This record gives sequence, C-alpha cells and structure tokens, in this order.
Amino acid sequence: MNSRVVAFGGGKGLAASLRALRGLDADITAVVTVADDGGSSGRLRATRPLIPPGDLRKALLALSPREDALADMFGHRFEGDDELAGHALGNLMLAGLMETLGDPVAALDAAAALLDATGRVIPMATVPLDIEADITNGAATTVVRGQHDVAVARGNVEQVRLLPPHPSACPEALGAIAEADWLVFGPGSWYTSVIPHLLVPELREAIIASPARRVVVLNLAAENETSGLSLAGHLAAFAAYAPGLTIDVVIADTQATGDPEPVTRAAQSLGARLELAAVAESASPTRHDHGALAVALESVIQRTEVGKSAWR
Amino acid sequence: MNSRVVAFGGGKGLAASLRALRGLDADITAVVTVADDGGSSGRLRATRPLIPPGDLRKALLALSPREDALADMFGHRFEGDDELAGHALGNLMLAGLMETLGDPVAALDAAAALLDATGRVIPMATVPLDIEADITNGAATTVVRGQHDVAVARGNVEQVRLLPPHPSACPEALGAIAEADWLVFGPGSWYTSVIPHLLVPELREAIIASPARRVVVLNLAAENETSGLSLAGHLAAFAAYAPGLTIDVVIADTQATGDPEPVTRAAQSLGARLELAAVAESASPTRHDHGALAVALESVIQRTEVGKSAWR
Repeated sequence: MNSRVVAFGGGKGLAASLRALRGLDADITAVVTVADDGGSSGRLRATRPLIPPGDLRKALLALSPREDALADMFGHRFEGDDELAGHALGNLMLAGLMETLGDPVAALDAAAALLDATGRVIPMATVPLDIEADITNGAATTVVRGQHDVAVARGNVEQVRLLPPHPSACPEALGAIAEADWLVFGPGSWYTSVIPHLLVPELREAIIASPARRVVVLNLAAENETSGLSLAGHLAAFAAYAPGLTIDVVIADTQATGDPEPVTRAAQSLGARLELAAVAESASPTRHDHGALAVALESVIQRTEVGKSAWR
Repeated sequence: MNSRVVAFGGGKGLAASLRALRGLDADITAVVTVADDGGSSGRLRATRPLIPPGDLRKALLALSPREDALADMFGHRFEGDDELAGHALGNLMLAGLMETLGDPVAALDAAAALLDATGRVIPMATVPLDIEADITNGAATTVVRGQHDVAVARGNVEQVRLLPPHPSACPEALGAIAEADWLVFGPGSWYTSVIPHLLVPELREAIIASPARRVVVLNLAAENETSGLSLAGHLAAFAAYAPGLTIDVVIADTQATGDPEPVTRAAQSLGARLELAAVAESASPTRHDHGALAVALESVIQRTEVGKSAWR
C-alpha cells in the first residue's frame, strides 16, 4: 500500500513539498492554512463568506499534472487596473465552486478531480481565520493583526495566535491525520503558514496523537517574519506550540544549514534525526528543487518504512 | 457523413437552436455576434481588449453535455455587491483563456474541448463591435448606440448598423460557411443578434455564395426591439440586409404564427417553404422546446437531404 502522507502548510512552501511528494508513490493530503488576507484572497474574503482560496489554489496546481487550458485558467492572474486586476482566476473559479456546491471541501474535491490532482486538498478549518502576532522591534512590542501584515512586519515574532482563538478543525483533515503514515510540516512561512496548524486545538491534538511519523522540512532562507531566527530556532518555535510533540526526521539543506551542530541538537531535543541534503535549486538557492526534495523525502520515507518493517 | 450545420445568432436564441441541433447527427459550428455591451460582457470589454464573452459562453454551454463542476463554474454568476457581483464566472474564464492563449478562436476551441462541446463556437469577428440603430418613436427618429440600448429602446428599428461599419469576418467562420450543408438563422433578438451577421460584408457575401441550404427559425414572441413587427415583417427585415439571398425553409411555431397566410407569402418571396410545428414549450410558450425544435430541424434537414438525393 502507498504511504499515506499529510502535508501541512500554505502558499509557496506547501506547493514545494507537494511538487516533491507528487512524484512518490504516496496518497497525499494537503492541509492548508485559511488565514490569508492579502491580495486576491483578501479581496474575496472581505466581501464573500468564503475561506481564502489562494493557498488552496496553489496546492491544487502543485498536485496537478495538467498543462492544458484548464491549468492555464487556474494559473492565470488578471493584469491591468480594472476590477479584475490582481485577481487570480483560479481563486475566482474556486470561489464560484464553493458558492455553487455550498461546501468548501466538496468544492476542493471537485476541483481536484477536474485537475487530475494526485491527492486531496483540505482547508485546516472551514471558516476564514486571522493571524495575530506580538512583534518586538527594539524595545517595543506591538500587536500586528492579519497574515499579510504579520508576514511583512519588521521585528521578531514573540507569539502568534489565531482569531477566533479556538476554531474547529476541518473534520476531513482530522481523518487524514488519524490515518496517515507520515505528517510533513514545512517548508513555508514559519509563523503564518506552518505554525498556524498547531494553533487549531483539534488539529494540534490530532497531530500529537497520530501514530504517523513526522518530518519537518526546514526553510532555505529567512523571511521578514523569521529574520534573525536560526534554523534551530525554527524548530524550537515550532515545538513551543505543540508541547509533547515529537518529530522523527528533520530535513534541511546542507548549504543553508552551514554548521549542522545547533540544528542537530535542536532536532535531537524533539526526538528527530537531522537529514542534510542538497535540496535547493542551484540557480536560485532560496527555492526548493522539487526533484532533490523528492529524493530526500523518498529516502526518508523508504528508509524509515524499512526500519519499521524490520522491527515488527 | 454528418450534415455540416452553421448556426448564426447570439445569446439565448442561439443557445436554443444549438441545444436542438446538439441531439442531431450534425457537425455544428456556432457563429456568434460580438457586439454585446451590457452586463458582465460590457464591463469586461470596457476595460480589456477582448471580444465580449457572454454570448460565446452561452453557446459553449448549449453545446456541452457536461453537468459537473466545470459546467457549474462556467454557468455560475456571482451575486452580491462587490467587484465580482454580476459577473458570469464563465465570462471570466473565457477572458482568462483569451488572455493566456492570445487568440479568441484558440481560446474558444480550448474551452469547447474542456467542455466536451459537440461543436465549435466561433465569433463572427475577432474584434468587439458595436450596434447602432435608427429608431422611430412617433414622429421622432433617434440614433441609439450600443447593443443593450438598442435591444431595450422603445420604438421601431428603421435601420441597424455595425460600428466600425465594415469589420473583417473571423476567417474560421467564413471557412465553416463555405463548407456547410445548412445555415440556420435565428431564433433570437432579430436586430441585435440575428441580422448583425449580415452586416459583416465578408460574412454576408459568404452566406449568399454558400452552396448550403438556408433555414430561418422565427421567434415565438416580440421583444422590445421588434415590438410591432409581424413574423412576415421579420423575414422582410432579414432579407433587406442581404439582397439576393434566398432561403429554403422557414420554421415557425404554429401557435405563434396564427394565420399562416402572410408568413407563407413572405417565405415564398424569399424562395422558402414554411414549416409550421409546435416548437414552443407548453409551460412557457415564449421559449423554444429544444426537443420539439430538434424534431422540426431534423425533419427539415432529412426531408431536404432526401429530396436532394432524388434529384440527382
């Protein structure tokens, strides 16, 4: 049987892990943040009772092998300066489908079927959420609200929260986690795309309770929201939001890691071994190379599966 | 070999003839007006260098057997009061495809393939056009510009024109006409959806020169733009824009026609026989019943094909 893999994240980082996972023999479920309030998604959620579709669209496209007119439409962004300008057409298509079918999960399943997606895309919650963070800059700590504003704020994120604070998880996400062999966290915007999953109480509990093995894929470069945060610090920040969570494997890029010692220790403190590999694109080393990341993930999954079998 | 049928029109009338033709063994090409300036299409053409997609979308949906999420999206109209409100999602999808592929015919062919359309949808011209009409109301004659305003204006249309006045026809439309066995005109808004095809010089010449047989399907009820115009008057108005054009068959609803004498004479003056049939929906007699119209069209096409063979 194929490994059942649940990948958590949002936006470009999740798309990178999904493009890597897509090539493996795995049953993939993407669980996607729903707190985006910028750009096309922000405009849509401001006027319509919809979860923001942008990150869901990116996940669907990452899982789709299609390169035809349907993929063209899904991937098109309107330019110009009219009412459509800046909107991703795929967001409008998902919005239309959610309105037509009346249920975001049904809409995403239908979109996945149309796009021949090699996996399922599930929102972490079925209502739109907001992110709020305490951010220190020098001596001042301010409360910044909104995923977009948190992501671009200068300073250090001290604490990140969801609004409303205790949303229900999407039941289909809980089901996928309970049945998973692997849970994959990251890469992605650490405080606004990766950690938010741990802020949904039911999701955090399901992640901790799942019999699945857990892998964290670390980022290649700091973003605004993580400027000054080391890779070891990323692991510590992640763990802080899920006390008791253990990790099995941490994947990091050899070049981006530099001295592996602190990351190795941070991984070990979570129960994980560190796997270093060259997973960045050589031409643009802040982006994951899907093929290389696929090899790294496959090797981790296969090696660990073999280990599991030998134990039994 | 299947009969090759080219259906001319725009909007709901063309959709009715296409839904009827779809059930026949025919290779269908819809040639669609591109002068719509109302609603979602009007907003799109006002800010983007696109032909108005609304009538093209309706023709594609009429030719598509799909009833899945893709058809749902194509047929969805956004409600509410934001920037999307009033837009047909299918129009946005066609606009995106035209922008992505850079060519309206390629976009329509791609959309038709996605929708499994049983035929091809071609714009009558590849640039947006406008309709202008001289309309008399009492003693006053005014010039009304814009398809929407002409369609809803009170008074009698004395003359209808295109702006710019001599647009090029879409080459694929000319090709389809040259190879057709049947040309089907109407039903539809007479001055703003049916006659405009005769106002494109190359199209008019191709229609007159085509070896195909020609059938006119008359309307079931008057609209604003044809209030006071009898069914015989419809035929006379149509013929006035294509001197020398002969018609083979005129199909009219028995009930809507009433006394057949004047329509019979008007048809005969164009070389046509009048076929009366019950082609209206019994529940809403201003709408064509697709099944009944299909039977009427099939009978006309088959009877005439047999006649042709017998002559040879």
